[in-house]
Order: sequence, then structure tokens, then C-alpha cells
Amino acid sequence: MEPIHDARGAPGDGHFAGLFAGAWLSRQPAAFRQHLIAVGRRAFYGRRYPIGFEGDDDRRILGIVSGSIGCLTSHRQHMPVLGTIIGPGQWFGMGPQLIGSERILSFVAREPSELISLGDTELWRLREAFPDLPQRLAGLAQLQSNHIAGLVAELLVPEADRRIAAVLLRLCEPGSGKDSLPLSQSELGEMANASRASVSRTLRVLAQRGLVEVGYGRIAVEDRAGLEAWFETSRTVA
Amino acid sequence: MEPIHDARGAPGDGHFAGLFAGAWLSRQPAAFRQHLIAVGRRAFYGRRYPIGFEGDDDRRILGIVSGSIGCLTSHRQHMPVLGTIIGPGQWFGMGPQLIGSERILSFVAREPSELISLGDTELWRLREAFPDLPQRLAGLAQLQSNHIAGLVAELLVPEADRRIAAVLLRLCEPGSGKDSLPLSQSELGEMANASRASVSRTLRVLAQRGLVEVGYGRIAVEDRAGLEAWFETSRTVA
Repeated sequence: MEPIHDARGAPGDGHFAGLFAGAWLSRQPAAFRQHLIAVGRRAFYGRRYPIGFEGDDDRRILGIVSGSIGCLTSHRQHMPVLGTIIGPGQWFGMGPQLIGSERILSFVAREPSELISLGDTELWRLREAFPDLPQRLAGLAQLQSNHIAGLVAELLVPEADRRIAAVLLRLCEPGSGKDSLPLSQSELGEMANASRASVSRTLRVLAQRGLVEVGYGRIAVEDRAGLEAWFETSRTVA
Repeated sequence: MEPIHDARGAPGDGHFAGLFAGAWLSRQPAAFRQHLIAVGRRAFYGRRYPIGFEGDDDRRILGIVSGSIGCLTSHRQHMPVLGTIIGPGQWFGMGPQLIGSERILSFVAREPSELISLGDTELWRLREAFPDLPQRLAGLAQLQSNHIAGLVAELLVPEADRRIAAVLLRLCEPGSGKDSLPLSQSELGEMANASRASVSRTLRVLAQRGLVEVGYGRIAVEDRAGLEAWFETSRTVA
């Protein structure tokens, strides 16, 4: 897939703050971060623009500077469903580069998004300056594995209404600047494996308590502490 | 955790076949596999023996030679549940070594199991012979990430009865030598996020059709192709 625009070069300080705040780059030395920005290609995708497909072997590793990316997964070649949404500082698409496999997920921009892309050439240049790059990439893959294991733990919560709350709490993490999400009820249901009826019932309950606000195609967490407390104490099955 | 027995050394050919058949080592050259066995420590765990706990920082990377290991996960410090069961050729516990983090899962032997363990010293020795070890470990972490993403896809299957079938199909993979699993109905329910009633109803239906056989604390897949066909066509909600 060709991005809408592609260029090298680093805009002024602060532009890449979102990328650097993620779990991986925040652990890397400043010199590594700067070099990564210098060699990486900037790529811009519009809303609904596909970035990669399950089955392709695009070897680019992609990091999110701004915007958000939907990760679609399918079980045994069934219809893909929205598995999760990732945002600034998160990376995706490492499989083809690290194990020479095809992509196992599809990725779509959910809003205008800026990415940094590291293909074979960029990684080679980065490794010239940082010969321990493979070790750093092993750390990235492990962080990814831990992150996805967290999704498993979330999907093992028995009650649908609590899974819905858990997804909202995760996607609206404090500091992410995301207290309001462009998110439909059916997308929320896909990520929480909850029926449309469950989602609508749960959101109604949560809105009545002032914990969330539901707009057209948007959901906002209004009271994070309250939603956490509701998650911990609620035992109703939606 | 101290294993029941611990020793270096490689028994005769064939002993490590299970370890080598897994997704990671099967891609490594024979010289690497042999060196790994030579430097690795063998460790034996009895049934129900804990191997590692969520929150510990044991830096050993562990590979399964024989037996099976239950991986327990907990969401927001709630009661741990059985997330999955892994067997010969699979590796676990890479987090502390690769990102210096604490373990995010707990691991328990489900039957007498033999493991190969690679701690700091063993990895250092392996790296002396194979300076590209970090790259190989990046591949291992990526394979792990792909594997766990598969669990997410499975848990996003909407119908509980089909999730139950999917778990059985995954755990009884052909070639794993596991057509019968030491598995209780409540453990199956935990892994599939299905209620006890769903599990018992689904197993009854599958047994009536001759697809599975349910014994005391054991479940056997009798007709794998039939179970796959049932998974693909069934749309009943258990």
C-alpha cells in the first residue's frame, strides 16, 4: 500500500512526543530515538485508509506518531473483526521483518494518522549506528506479546458488561489524551465480544450513572475512577 | 522456584524431538539447536508444580521438552484463570530476560514435564557461539506475539459453543500427539470464557455426534475433521 504522502526528515522538537511516550521508545536512549526519526520514513494515512493486510509480506515496521489504527483479526479465515485500536507510541507489523512470515492482522487508519515506517533500508541504517538493534527489536516484540496477553486477560472476563467497561478503560488510558473515542457501538461490541444488545444496555447503564457519554459514533469516558469502581464491583451479566 | 531436578547434558538423539518440532527451534540451524541443548539446563517438574509466578523477575527462558504447562492470567489483579495450555516445542517466560519486566503470567506444570531452561549464564554461553542470538530471540518473541494474537482471535468468536470447539481443536493439534487431554470441564470453560453450563451442554452435543469423548478429567478429540466441520457450520449459541 502506498501512503498518501511519504518523506524523510524530522519536524521540530515535540512533534514526535507521542511516538516517544510509548512503552518501547520511552525505554530507549535519546540518541537512538533521534536516529530512528532521522532514518525513518514519515507516512500519512487518511481515515479508513488500509495500511496492511493479513497475508501480505510488507516488511515495514510501523510506529504511530499521531492518530489511531484499527487492528483486524480473523479466526480461521472467517470475517475479520476489530480486535483492538492502537494509538501514539504503539508499533505494529513486526512479523514479516522479524520472522519472515506473512502479516496475521490487517491494519486500517481510523482517523488521519501519521506513522513512522522502518523498512529493510531504514533498519539497516539504524543498525549501522546501533549494532544492538536486534536486541532492541526483541524487546519491542516482547512488549507486543505482553500487550496482546493483556487483551487475552480482558477477553477472559466472564461478564459482557465488565468486558465492555474494560475495553473503554484501556482505550481511554489517562495521559493518552483520549477521553473521547471515535467508536461505534458495534465496534465496541466486536472488541469486547459482546452482543449489540449488551453494548447498548451497558452503555445506557453507564451513561445514567454519569460514567460515560455516548455521542454519534463517539464514546467518552466522563468519570474514569467511577468506571473503574463500577468494573470492580459490578457482577451483573448484560 | 527450584525444579525437582536440574542437570546439564544431552541424552541420546530423539529425546529433544518435541522441543525441536516447535515453531521457533524448527527454524534454527541444527548447530544452534545442538548448542542450545548443550548449554541449557534440564529441569523436571511434577504435576501441579509451580514454575513461575506473575510478578517475579526470574530471568530464565523456558522451553518445553515434554509434558504441558498451564499459563494463568489475571485481569487487574483479579483471580487468575487458565488462559491456555502449552506443550512440547513452546517457550515461555521471556519477559524478564527481554525487557527486564516482571512476569505477567503464572506457569504451572499440568503433568510431569521436562523443560530446558536458559538463564543469564546459559544465554551468554549461547551468544558466544551465536553472536546473532538477539535476532533469534526477537524471532522467538515475535512468534509468541503471533501465537497470543491467535488466542485473541479465538476469544472473539461470538458463540460460546464454537469457542469451546476452537480451544479443543487448538490444543489437540495433529502431530502434537495429543488427541486426549488431561482437562476438566471447568478448565475448558476458563480458556473458552464459557459458563459451566455451556461447556457441559456443548460437550454433550459433541459427544453425541462422536466428535469428542469425555472421560473423568480428560477430553479426547475423536474426529478432528468432524469437529472442524461442526465449528464451521454450527451457529447455535450455547
